[in-house]
Amino acid sequence: MLPTASPPHFTPVPLDKAYRLLNHGPVVLVSATHAGQHNVMAASWACALDFAPPKVTVVLDKATRTRELVEASGLFALQLPTVPLAALTVALGTDTAKTTPDKLQRHGVLLFDAPGQPAPTTPPLVQGCAAWLLCRVVPEPHNQQAYDLFIGEVVAAWADDRVFRNGHWEFDTAPDDLRTLHYVAGGQFYATGASVRV
Amino acid sequence: MLPTASPPHFTPVPLDKAYRLLNHGPVVLVSATHAGQHNVMAASWACALDFAPPKVTVVLDKATRTRELVEASGLFALQLPTVPLAALTVALGTDTAKTTPDKLQRHGVLLFDAPGQPAPTTPPLVQGCAAWLLCRVVPEPHNQQAYDLFIGEVVAAWADDRVFRNGHWEFDTAPDDLRTLHYVAGGQFYATGASVRV
Repeated sequence: MLPTASPPHFTPVPLDKAYRLLNHGPVVLVSATHAGQHNVMAASWACALDFAPPKVTVVLDKATRTRELVEASGLFALQLPTVPLAALTVALGTDTAKTTPDKLQRHGVLLFDAPGQPAPTTPPLVQGCAAWLLCRVVPEPHNQQAYDLFIGEVVAAWADDRVFRNGHWEFDTAPDDLRTLHYVAGGQFYATGASVRV
Repeated sequence: MLPTASPPHFTPVPLDKAYRLLNHGPVVLVSATHAGQHNVMAASWACALDFAPPKVTVVLDKATRTRELVEASGLFALQLPTVPLAALTVALGTDTAKTTPDKLQRHGVLLFDAPGQPAPTTPPLVQGCAAWLLCRVVPEPHNQQAYDLFIGEVVAAWADDRVFRNGHWEFDTAPDDLRTLHYVAGGQFYATGASVRV
């Protein structure tokens, strides 16, 4: 599986707007790479932590291969799967590369390189997502050990400009296939719904 | 403002299902009390952290009165506002009791006591929400100081049984007024949308 070129509509997001990509609480896919090995897992427990510099938290279980790659490389990417990726998201959150080494191939995950980043250590990104946040681990060994809680500083961000542009989500005017997902449990998601503006 | 009786449909949620109340990433209202003073603020940065015992994270800025009450009492409640409470949520996230001491009265916040809990230190709960999680602070001074990040263990949970029952959200068969909210920025929310089941 070789990363391919960036998909159409893949557009940089200024770092001061990056928190908005995660603020509405979507499920994420977490990707990481080390020594030529990639992996991707699903995570519901990802959250914005700060505006400037933008920081995030994400919970990465000790049993996961992705966590090992994050710890070895000091980098991870969070990306927001869209409605058509719901089944893939469940699959990537269920299978583990520790017992299914061909997990990514088996589920047909399409990866691409984060543009302008040093390729050997930069996590590959997953096609078909609505937004991507590349993060550098802020080492906090106690949190990582006691709570599986990782803090990351967002160092680059991108979104599909059909659904996020000029610093704003535009779900209501974009194709419904670009709506992001909110996970509950047992294969049950809710799509991001109607706009409510105060 | 005196807390009133529990609202209709207010129903206990078993602790092993409590993470599901927060798993889909909704905005929350954070309430706390100390020495007879209540307060409520809005927070987008709240997230599940563990299943058993259920734990959560929430970011509470040092400038907030609610944080002072949380630090003094060691308790907070997270609750999920519904669509009709969107304007109230923005108001409670904008005004601060430090300069607007009558913030809760001004915005007509209706509180009630968490049943079966010691009243003097237990945060009051906000009516009109879809779910409520009562949390005990797990002291982590470094996280609190460096990141404004608080960890709480959920000690009791409840939901409106019209929209969460038998351990499952039932947004699609409940009135739309019971949908929860996902906040972006600048008064822009998205309601929890359509069910996507894998």
